[in-house]
Amino acid sequence: MKTIQSTGNQTVKNWKKLAAKKGRLKQEKYLLEGWHLVKEAIHANEKILEIMGTAEALAQEQLQIDLNQVDLYEISPEVAQQLSETPSPQGIFATVALKQTEAVLPTEITGSWLFLDTVQDPGNVGTMVRTADAAGFAGVVLSKGSVDMYQPKLVRAMQGSQFHIQIVQDDLAKWTTAFKAQGLPVFGSELNDQARSYDQVGRHEDFAVMMGNEGNGLSQEMLAATSMNLYIPIKGQAESLNVAVAAGILMFALKA
Amino acid sequence: MKTIQSTGNQTVKNWKKLAAKKGRLKQEKYLLEGWHLVKEAIHANEKILEIMGTAEALAQEQLQIDLNQVDLYEISPEVAQQLSETPSPQGIFATVALKQTEAVLPTEITGSWLFLDTVQDPGNVGTMVRTADAAGFAGVVLSKGSVDMYQPKLVRAMQGSQFHIQIVQDDLAKWTTAFKAQGLPVFGSELNDQARSYDQVGRHEDFAVMMGNEGNGLSQEMLAATSMNLYIPIKGQAESLNVAVAAGILMFALKA
Repeated sequence: MKTIQSTGNQTVKNWKKLAAKKGRLKQEKYLLEGWHLVKEAIHANEKILEIMGTAEALAQEQLQIDLNQVDLYEISPEVAQQLSETPSPQGIFATVALKQTEAVLPTEITGSWLFLDTVQDPGNVGTMVRTADAAGFAGVVLSKGSVDMYQPKLVRAMQGSQFHIQIVQDDLAKWTTAFKAQGLPVFGSELNDQARSYDQVGRHEDFAVMMGNEGNGLSQEMLAATSMNLYIPIKGQAESLNVAVAAGILMFALKA
Repeated sequence: MKTIQSTGNQTVKNWKKLAAKKGRLKQEKYLLEGWHLVKEAIHANEKILEIMGTAEALAQEQLQIDLNQVDLYEISPEVAQQLSETPSPQGIFATVALKQTEAVLPTEITGSWLFLDTVQDPGNVGTMVRTADAAGFAGVVLSKGSVDMYQPKLVRAMQGSQFHIQIVQDDLAKWTTAFKAQGLPVFGSELNDQARSYDQVGRHEDFAVMMGNEGNGLSQEMLAATSMNLYIPIKGQAESLNVAVAAGILMFALKA
């Protein structure tokens, strides 16, 4: 075990750089914070590179991992604060190897999928990944124009769901075409009361549902590419629903 | 119209104090930011006390309000940045008089209500108020232990729904008792797969649905006080749903 006391240490500086996409791509890893996520990563047999904990945190719980396989660091509370996204950190962190997020499309698609087209807010995307996991979805495809899937706020909001379901960052038009070619419906979501109401299309096993950008919704191009577009009727005076709330309503209503 | 250039001006300092509950209670007003909210407040005939805009913002749109009734300020871009919660402010703000949030309970309760028990995250609460509005609910009752309803992030997340539906900060036990005394169901939400599934209780006109704290859910006391507790079946490996997503699923599923 190595010990790092100073926030000025180069290794600490490199960990801080993982908050930016550039740093993550260069170092080919991303940062996890907190016991829940670190344990989930261990449980899921993710490729954990380093574990960093304060003396207090490391004394608190046993890490269920072969410590010959990872670099273990004892860090000072100051370093923990420096690495943390929260005001009162638990003092435990890990770095995990990035996965190849541009997947080869399965030749036979199964299960339910969430497609996210240029969704920007990391909290919204993370919450939608978590909801897709809870709803029993097979995976999430994030368009290339969406926020990077290893963005720290996104990682926090996913709460470990990246270890349970597939997450792919890829070209959504390609995925949409593949679904339709296999006879599987791709439901778009549209803020248009002329569109079909979401509760009138039944429940499905193998399908995709696509959500658009927070401010603009799905692009005309995507609305035209889907099999059918669905609307969640707004009964009050609110102009729209938050995208993560709308995605939750659709996923739980459409999944068989 | 008054002009304020300096961020050191006492009036600006007073506006800044509206970010804290203490400042809001003392000055008996809260701050709105952005064209959408300012226009909604005007449209809803809220008691607007002051409107503050940069020269650019004020030139951009006509304010549909009798300017003899409010104090209008032209503020510098620096002051706008100081007041703003966002990196690129629209440069338009208003202060609105606080409402009495402890309501007299209606003698005959009608409509659908969302009860929030010690929910802490302002973004979650704001999103749930917006969703309640979209779902056609009559109002939201926030427990006294919940976040203050005029907290700036909460106000931003509501997107003006406080002007469309009733929002009350009051004792939830009192409201629950009143609903049940009038024969109206109060549905609690519980992360317990022994509870009744949310999609097996039909749709209702007059009822309440109660959501609990993000980390701990509803207290034992509240779970015992409701008419019945409902569960949203988790099909994947996620441990739970985000409270705002869960509230959205329940509100849209339960409302007739």
